[in-house]
Amino acid sequence: MIRVTIWNEFRHERLNPVVAAIYPNGIHEAIRAFLKDDSNYIIHTSTLDEPECGLTEELLNDTDVLVWWGHKAHREVSDEAAERVVRHVQGGMGLVALHSAHESKPFIRLMGTTCSLKWRKSGEKERLWNVAPTHPIMKGVGDYFELEHVEMYGERFDVPKPDDVLMISWYPGGEIFRSCCTWTRGNGRIVHFKPGHETFPIYENPNVQLVIRNAVNWAAPAARGLPASRQTDPLEMIEQIEC
Amino acid sequence: MIRVTIWNEFRHERLNPVVAAIYPNGIHEAIRAFLKDDSNYIIHTSTLDEPECGLTEELLNDTDVLVWWGHKAHREVSDEAAERVVRHVQGGMGLVALHSAHESKPFIRLMGTTCSLKWRKSGEKERLWNVAPTHPIMKGVGDYFELEHVEMYGERFDVPKPDDVLMISWYPGGEIFRSCCTWTRGNGRIVHFKPGHETFPIYENPNVQLVIRNAVNWAAPAARGLPASRQTDPLEMIEQIEC
Amino acid sequence: MIRVTIWNEFRHERLNPVVAAIYPNGIHEAIRAFLKDDSNYIIHTSTLDEPECGLTEELLNDTDVLVWWGHKAHREVSDEAAERVVRHVQGGMGLVALHSAHESKPFIRLMGTTCSLKWRKSGEKERLWNVAPTHPIMKGVGDYFELEHVEMYGERFDVPKPDDVLMISWYPGGEIFRSCCTWTRGNGRIVHFKPGHETFPIYENPNVQLVIRNAVNWAAPAARGLPASRQTDPLEMIEQIEC
Amino acid sequence: MIRVTIWNEFRHERLNPVVAAIYPNGIHEAIRAFLKDDSNYIIHTSTLDEPECGLTEELLNDTDVLVWWGHKAHREVSDEAAERVVRHVQGGMGLVALHSAHESKPFIRLMGTTCSLKWRKSGEKERLWNVAPTHPIMKGVGDYFELEHVEMYGERFDVPKPDDVLMISWYPGGEIFRSCCTWTRGNGRIVHFKPGHETFPIYENPNVQLVIRNAVNWAAPAARGLPASRQTDPLEMIEQIEC
Repeated sequence: MIRVTIWNEFRHERLNPVVAAIYPNGIHEAIRAFLKDDSNYIIHTSTLDEPECGLTEELLNDTDVLVWWGHKAHREVSDEAAERVVRHVQGGMGLVALHSAHESKPFIRLMGTTCSLKWRKSGEKERLWNVAPTHPIMKGVGDYFELEHVEMYGERFDVPKPDDVLMISWYPGGEIFRSCCTWTRGNGRIVHFKPGHETFPIYENPNVQLVIRNAVNWAAPAARGLPASRQTDPLEMIEQIEC
Repeated sequence: MIRVTIWNEFRHERLNPVVAAIYPNGIHEAIRAFLKDDSNYIIHTSTLDEPECGLTEELLNDTDVLVWWGHKAHREVSDEAAERVVRHVQGGMGLVALHSAHESKPFIRLMGTTCSLKWRKSGEKERLWNVAPTHPIMKGVGDYFELEHVEMYGERFDVPKPDDVLMISWYPGGEIFRSCCTWTRGNGRIVHFKPGHETFPIYENPNVQLVIRNAVNWAAPAARGLPASRQTDPLEMIEQIEC
Repeated sequence: MIRVTIWNEFRHERLNPVVAAIYPNGIHEAIRAFLKDDSNYIIHTSTLDEPECGLTEELLNDTDVLVWWGHKAHREVSDEAAERVVRHVQGGMGLVALHSAHESKPFIRLMGTTCSLKWRKSGEKERLWNVAPTHPIMKGVGDYFELEHVEMYGERFDVPKPDDVLMISWYPGGEIFRSCCTWTRGNGRIVHFKPGHETFPIYENPNVQLVIRNAVNWAAPAARGLPASRQTDPLEMIEQIEC
Repeated sequence: MIRVTIWNEFRHERLNPVVAAIYPNGIHEAIRAFLKDDSNYIIHTSTLDEPECGLTEELLNDTDVLVWWGHKAHREVSDEAAERVVRHVQGGMGLVALHSAHESKPFIRLMGTTCSLKWRKSGEKERLWNVAPTHPIMKGVGDYFELEHVEMYGERFDVPKPDDVLMISWYPGGEIFRSCCTWTRGNGRIVHFKPGHETFPIYENPNVQLVIRNAVNWAAPAARGLPASRQTDPLEMIEQIEC
C-alpha cells in the first residue's frame, strides 16, 4: 500500500471562473479521480488554507508520496511547513512536484538552485519526447505524446544535474525543456513533471495520468528515517587499532 | 587572475592552545601561505567575528572562489550571510568546502540534504585513493596519499549524488569515505574536500595543498550572474506561430 | 515471472580439488540453490563447454536476466557468443556480472573501457559498505557486511562512471574498491558485484545472496527490443513544414 | 600545445559535385582552416584511403585530440584501425566525434550501445539550445544558435547516459535531440557534436567552429597511458597484516 497525499494550493479554482470550469472541485480532486481506482493507494488531499498550510507533522508522517501543485501563493506556505516537507523528503517521503511546483519553497530548498526557467502564456502545443524508455516512470509511454494547449516552459531550467532526464519537450514556438526529471535527496526520491497549467484540462490527459501514477509508484520510499550524524567511540572501532 | 577569499571561523585557534600551536595565525593564514606564491591569485581572508560574519556583499562580489573552513560555530553564521553565500555560488562563485564545512549553513542549503556522516576523534591514519585520475582536480596526485593522524569521517555521507567522486578514503579503523566530491549549483562549482581537522597540521601536507590549489583553479567561474526566470511575450516568439 | 539464466565457465570446479570441495556441483548450482526458492524465477543454467559456449540465440531469447561467472577462460568464449550477449543486453536483457566477470568479453564490450583493476590473492577480509541505502539493490542490506576471506580487488577500477555506486569495499591490506555498481546500455541494465572468488565459499553468504537476488529483480527488463536507427520521410513529418 | 589530428572519410567530397562545391578540399581542410589560427595547435590531417586507413600507431601516438568525420564508409575502417583508436582513447587521447561519427566503429565500441537514432534528409532548420552554460565547451556560446539547413537527427539517441548534456536541438519538423554530449572512457574524454552534414556548409558557421574549438581544448589529455590490471603481492601490502 502506498499512502498518497495530494497537496494543492487551491486558489485559482476558487478565484478564476475559467479554472473553476475546468477543475470545479479543485486540481487535487482531479488528480484523486484518476488515482483512486488503484487499490494499492490510500489517498488523502490537503490544501494551503487548512491549518499549518495543510502540512501537519501528523499528515506527513502518514504520507509515503506527496504530490504537490502550487502556483501563485508559494510565499504563503510558511517556512515551518516548507521545512517539514523538506525534512520528510530527506527522511524518505517521495515528492512528485507538478508544473509550477518548481518555484515552491520545498522544491527550491531540496534542489539548492534558483529553479528559474523561461516561460510563455501562449497556449501553444507541447510534444513530450520519451528519452529514457527503460525507466519505470516511462512504463507504457510511447516515443512521445502531445498536449494541445499549454503554458510553455523553456530552458535554461536551473536545476542540479538530474539523476535521470526522462522526457524533453518540444514547442512550436521554438523552445525545448527537460520536462520530466528525477533526483534523490537523503532517503527521498523526487520527480518534477512539467504538465499542469491550471487554465487547460491537462490532468484529464491519459498520458499525463499514466506518468503521474508511475511517478508515485517509483517515488514510494524503500525506507524511512532521517539520516543523522553519528559519533563513534575509538573504543568501539570495528577494527581494534592503536591510535 | 582568480580572486580567492579564504573564510575561516577562527575560534579554535584563539581558544585552544593545542590548535594555536599548530596554526598560530589561524587556519586561513596557513592556507594563504601555500596559495600566495601563485601569481595568478589575488587572495583575501575573512573571519566569522568580522562585521556581517565577514561575508559582506562587497567582499563576495570581489570573490571568484570562496574557500570555507568552519567547525564549532556554524550556527553563529547569520542566515543572511549564509543566503548571500548561497546566492553568489548560484551566480557563479566557486566554493571549496573544507573538512567540517559539510555542516555549514551555505553547504547544507546548496546540497538540499542533511550532509550528515559518521565521525570519530581517533587520530588514526587516512589513505586517500585517487579514483578519477583524469579530473583536473587530481592533476599531479598519485594513486593515493596518506595523512598520519586525522579525525575519521565515514559513510553514509548524506549528500546528493556527486557530479564526480574523485577520492575515496580508507581508515585502519574499518571505514571508508567519499573524501573529494564535486557538484554544480546554478553557475557555481562546489568541491568538498575532507582533510583538515584543526588538531593536526593537515594543511602543511603537500598533497592536501596540491588538491586545494587544483580545486580553486577548477572552481573559478566561467561566467557570473544569477539565473533568473524570464517571461517571454507570445508576440516575441522565436518562431511565429498562431496559438 | 523472471527467466534467469546462470552462466558459469565451470572449469575451476572440475580441475581444482579445492574449488571442487567448495562447489561440488559448480558455482552455477550454488547460485541456483539460493535463487530456486523464489517462485517468481524460472531458472536455467548454462556453461562454457556446451555448444555455442552455452550462449545460443534460443537460450538468450528465453532469458530476462543473465548471471555471469567466468574467470580463467574468458578468451574461450567465442566472439560470436560474446556479441550475442552484448546485443541481447542492448535489447533489454539484464546482466549481473559477478566477480571476475569484469574481464569477460561481453562486459568489456558493454563498458567500452579496459575494466582493469588491482588485485591480490591474499585471502584477507572484505567489508562492503552500503553507500546508497535507498537503491532497490540495497533493500535489506545494513550499513555494511563482511566476508572473512576474499581475493582483494582494488582501485583504480577502469569503468565508465557508474549510474550508481551502491557499495564500497574496505580491506585490511589498505585498499578500497567500488564493489557494486550499475550501468544502463540501450534497454538493458547491468550490475557488477565484486564478491565471488572460487576458492572461498562466498556464495553461501546470506548477504551476498541477498544482493544477487535484488540485482536480478532490478535488472529484469521493462521492455525488449534492440534500438535501431530509423529514417523518417520528409513527407511524413510530425509537423508539416516547408523545407 | 595540443596535437590535433583531423581524420576525414573524404569520399563524398570526391564523388558528389554538390559536396565538392561546398568543401572543395575536403571537410578535413575546412576544419583545419578555422583551427589553424590558434598557435596552441599542431594540426595534422588524415583520410580513410591512406595506408592503414590513415590511422597508424605512429600518428595516434602523436595525437592529443582526434577529430573524426565519417559517414558512408564506416565499414571500410578496418577492425584493427578501429581498435587502435579505441585503445588510444582509453589511454588518454581525446575524441571529438562529429555528426554521423555516431555510427563509426570506434565510437560504437567506446559507447557499448547501438548509437542508433532517428534521422531525416529534410534540410530543415536546427536550433541548438545551450543547457549547460558553465561547461568549458559552452564558453562563449549564447542561449542558443541556429543552422538554417541541416539533416535532422532525433531521439531516441541510444547512447549511455552522458557525463554531461550540453546542447539540445529543436527542429521545426517536431523533433528534439541531445546534440552535444560528453563521456569519459579510461583516461580519454569524448565529445559527440551533431552538426555537420556534408551537403550544407555547416563548418563555416562561427558557432559550430567555436564549439569544436572548445571541444578540442576540453578533450586534450591530462595524462596518457592505458589503464592496466596489476597484481600485488601479499608480501608487498600497503598495510602489513596476517592473512
